[in-house]
Amino acid sequence: MNTAAAHPGAADANGILLLSCPDRPGIVSAVAELIFRHGGNIVHAEQHTDTEASVFLQRVEFGLRGFGLSRDELRVAVEELGARFGMTAAVRFSDERCRVALLASREPHCLYDLLARWRGGELPADVALVLSNHPDHAATAEHFGVPYHHLPTEPGGREAQEVAMVDLLRAARVDLVVLARYMQILSPAMIAAYPHRIINIHHSFLPAFVGARPYHQAHERGVKLVGVTAHYATDDLDQGPIIAQDVVHVSHRDDVADLIRRGRDLEKSVLAEAVLAHIEHRILVYGNKTVVFT
Amino acid sequence: MNTAAAHPGAADANGILLLSCPDRPGIVSAVAELIFRHGGNIVHAEQHTDTEASVFLQRVEFGLRGFGLSRDELRVAVEELGARFGMTAAVRFSDERCRVALLASREPHCLYDLLARWRGGELPADVALVLSNHPDHAATAEHFGVPYHHLPTEPGGREAQEVAMVDLLRAARVDLVVLARYMQILSPAMIAAYPHRIINIHHSFLPAFVGARPYHQAHERGVKLVGVTAHYATDDLDQGPIIAQDVVHVSHRDDVADLIRRGRDLEKSVLAEAVLAHIEHRILVYGNKTVVFT
Amino acid sequence: MNTAAAHPGAADANGILLLSCPDRPGIVSAVAELIFRHGGNIVHAEQHTDTEASVFLQRVEFGLRGFGLSRDELRVAVEELGARFGMTAAVRFSDERCRVALLASREPHCLYDLLARWRGGELPADVALVLSNHPDHAATAEHFGVPYHHLPTEPGGREAQEVAMVDLLRAARVDLVVLARYMQILSPAMIAAYPHRIINIHHSFLPAFVGARPYHQAHERGVKLVGVTAHYATDDLDQGPIIAQDVVHVSHRDDVADLIRRGRDLEKSVLAEAVLAHIEHRILVYGNKTVVFT
Amino acid sequence: MNTAAAHPGAADANGILLLSCPDRPGIVSAVAELIFRHGGNIVHAEQHTDTEASVFLQRVEFGLRGFGLSRDELRVAVEELGARFGMTAAVRFSDERCRVALLASREPHCLYDLLARWRGGELPADVALVLSNHPDHAATAEHFGVPYHHLPTEPGGREAQEVAMVDLLRAARVDLVVLARYMQILSPAMIAAYPHRIINIHHSFLPAFVGARPYHQAHERGVKLVGVTAHYATDDLDQGPIIAQDVVHVSHRDDVADLIRRGRDLEKSVLAEAVLAHIEHRILVYGNKTVVFT
Repeated sequence: MNTAAAHPGAADANGILLLSCPDRPGIVSAVAELIFRHGGNIVHAEQHTDTEASVFLQRVEFGLRGFGLSRDELRVAVEELGARFGMTAAVRFSDERCRVALLASREPHCLYDLLARWRGGELPADVALVLSNHPDHAATAEHFGVPYHHLPTEPGGREAQEVAMVDLLRAARVDLVVLARYMQILSPAMIAAYPHRIINIHHSFLPAFVGARPYHQAHERGVKLVGVTAHYATDDLDQGPIIAQDVVHVSHRDDVADLIRRGRDLEKSVLAEAVLAHIEHRILVYGNKTVVFT
Repeated sequence: MNTAAAHPGAADANGILLLSCPDRPGIVSAVAELIFRHGGNIVHAEQHTDTEASVFLQRVEFGLRGFGLSRDELRVAVEELGARFGMTAAVRFSDERCRVALLASREPHCLYDLLARWRGGELPADVALVLSNHPDHAATAEHFGVPYHHLPTEPGGREAQEVAMVDLLRAARVDLVVLARYMQILSPAMIAAYPHRIINIHHSFLPAFVGARPYHQAHERGVKLVGVTAHYATDDLDQGPIIAQDVVHVSHRDDVADLIRRGRDLEKSVLAEAVLAHIEHRILVYGNKTVVFT
Repeated sequence: MNTAAAHPGAADANGILLLSCPDRPGIVSAVAELIFRHGGNIVHAEQHTDTEASVFLQRVEFGLRGFGLSRDELRVAVEELGARFGMTAAVRFSDERCRVALLASREPHCLYDLLARWRGGELPADVALVLSNHPDHAATAEHFGVPYHHLPTEPGGREAQEVAMVDLLRAARVDLVVLARYMQILSPAMIAAYPHRIINIHHSFLPAFVGARPYHQAHERGVKLVGVTAHYATDDLDQGPIIAQDVVHVSHRDDVADLIRRGRDLEKSVLAEAVLAHIEHRILVYGNKTVVFT
Repeated sequence: MNTAAAHPGAADANGILLLSCPDRPGIVSAVAELIFRHGGNIVHAEQHTDTEASVFLQRVEFGLRGFGLSRDELRVAVEELGARFGMTAAVRFSDERCRVALLASREPHCLYDLLARWRGGELPADVALVLSNHPDHAATAEHFGVPYHHLPTEPGGREAQEVAMVDLLRAARVDLVVLARYMQILSPAMIAAYPHRIINIHHSFLPAFVGARPYHQAHERGVKLVGVTAHYATDDLDQGPIIAQDVVHVSHRDDVADLIRRGRDLEKSVLAEAVLAHIEHRILVYGNKTVVFT
């Protein structure tokens, strides 16, 4: 997909509707009619019906050039439509870029990878800040021109550290928190502050090998593939809605260090894939699952 | 996707529209409105806009239970809609199963695989006949309860063989011809008789290694992966619209016999994937490309 | 690899040594010298040292044409070598084909696939019999010319059924038992009778989703890939040494029926891969892990 | 594989032999005996016989701790062995790190990726310099502490530019030249100066789409996968020995910009894989093919 989100610009901006509701006839027609009536041209639409749960989910993207409603008027119109169908509805605009915070601990590879993609134009978002419980990445952040905050986690100071963190995130008006191999467990309060807006990369193909040192667990079990999982952080550690997963084949030749090295490539690409899907507004969460439109 | 095509039954049949036309506002709305107005519920819809070529393509599947139009009336209504938008439109029904002919030469693996999938319920179609230029597969066809026709290709008799073949296909009212490793080159007349209704499996990742003995070519070149391509047969050998491709990694340890063995698995799965997409009416062809909806 | 195992024939047979022992200098040299001294030419050799466990493992394949020792003399010589290094050693010959039993319950796809590969020459082994707790596959076995035994599992008759099964396996001098989607749990006695000679295909990427209905579990969890695992059966259900694994990407569009369908392709190819590795004598088990040489 | 090359240190250094010769009995034995006689312990050995070409190829890695020969004496001993078997033989040591030059044009992603891997300890080599025909990457090189050389290619000045380049490479005692998306065609003189020591990343699965703009070619053809190829540069453009390849699935939704973005991830990982194999001395070239040991 080459959404306009990737190439923003006020004149050519698109409106994006993310809709979910109990399934029933007429939804697609009503949404399409609303857009058409005001002169919008749908450039991309995808829908999914979970027949088991009887849930309808849709993402519609349409051009705003010549569209007859202002952004606020559109929000009102979608709200009315939502009320009619019992819909959860979100309205986004391709030129209103997500503000992203990158959190890392010692390991730099995901942080580097995301920053390099961002600078290369692959991630249409604003990286507002880099935050770490270690001082290691200050020069890297500076190289990419992003503010760096070192918030050490001192014994007994976990809570204070997290309060300071949330203050920083709020001050920077952050929409999305990316745990780029950030190894601290977040408190329920922190997670509640950013519902379905914290993406973590776990270094196993969940639900295998939850918890600590998954590559060591994988090696011990003698698996023939290792994997990684990008998911939204929830109160249940490693149990949140899965966004993306991938694996790589390994063999008896690979010791733990090899698994870690091979896993790193997956961590980078899978985390980037999940972040891109989020900032292009292609993810809908329902129950403990995601729909990731292409 | 779990289309109704996979679970046919008159009561629960779905209508399927395959539409393509020059892109312009209002198409999605008009299609959705037509279905909704007559009481249909859209269970699956996908659309694609090729912005470069300015072509709009859509597949819409909706439940016929309670739908207010007969099948013939639906055809007329879609024709009218098509005329309005300059559309190429096809109307299919999930309970009208494709009639399929399987053509094979000596190698049995694709033939076997398709017949086993078909018997296992994976391919919602009617296998009308198996046809070969060799006598080898008679017992196999009999085991699966499918008529077998042996049409040898004698020197100077190519034309006669093909005439007999087309006669058989017509008599059996075949909709789709699957070249399951059928190694004879088809004449332009035969291809014209089944436009975009002949699927071939070529044993390389096209456009690499067109022509004969692609695994030998691949081994000679020292590639690190071999692949296969399912495509619609056209007059240009190995140049038709690609439907599906896949590859497998190989190494210096693999000699030509190994490449052939590894390739076989791909040939089976990629051909089956392409046939399934065709009989579920998920493929649209435009220019020399396909859109394969999921 | 194109081992001679794939192309047997007394004149061109190869000897195969499977060796494991505590790591120490001189092993490779002693093995190579033994073969060279008697005029054998090593055509394939692979070794692996698990440095953590300090275990050395090796597979050596060499041509018997012109080799100075008889098969029995070779066995004695390897035994002597083994005693010197504290080695576990096995001697195999590429022209002494494994005798294989295929066990299936209702689902036919793995059974079909293995039989078709076998007939196509992909599996250099003798399929001695097909055995099932259902009558369904009699015609299939007959089509492939393999004896079929229907051993129903009656309430309270599990033990008797298994005794009859082991009798049949013994009478047929079976070396390898393949659980081609055989859904009965084997007793410890049965497993003890065929140590590391029973291969099972589990329909998840172990250790995720052990136990029953793994595709349902996977769907419930909302994973983005499903997988399968071929492993040796041990007393611990789904915990035996893993031989091969693979996964396929899935999406929100795939319901449980789709996962089952996609998984089937993996089950077929991964089980066949494991069986081929076993009958080509390429697997060494140590601890709860396998070394699968290529 | 976790070769000592990845964890160098004089005391624990390994010797590595890369051998190729016409196949005949006794080679494996003679090599193993040479190492064992002087007290070396083989930690890794792989061999391959191309039976068609009757060529034997081997890589042996052994511990130098307690080894009875000096490095020069080992070289002499291997030379003598080589003379006996008509062998091409190379002797490497895991603690003598490759000196690498990275060449890039405008696109930064491969350059960044290699530098980040190198700093993260994934690439056991010395990056001697970064060289570009553009000034763009000076800050990046500085950030990683690597000398940067901007050698513009002026009209009519191609030859002079290349002479300056070779001078720089020689002055820096470079062993391996990595074309990290360096878009200038190298002269035969340059290639002759670094035989099988220039690695290029081509952005297609060769031999498909040789030449310019392969992603555009791929999009035009409507392929369902795009790929990349790492190969040694030779005089024949895009025809050199292939080291590594990979592909990613694409669909009708992906326009040229998407193919380029998806391809970038492959370019990074496949190029890094090829560079790692080279600097760990795991590649043997024969004819126009490579053997890449694991």
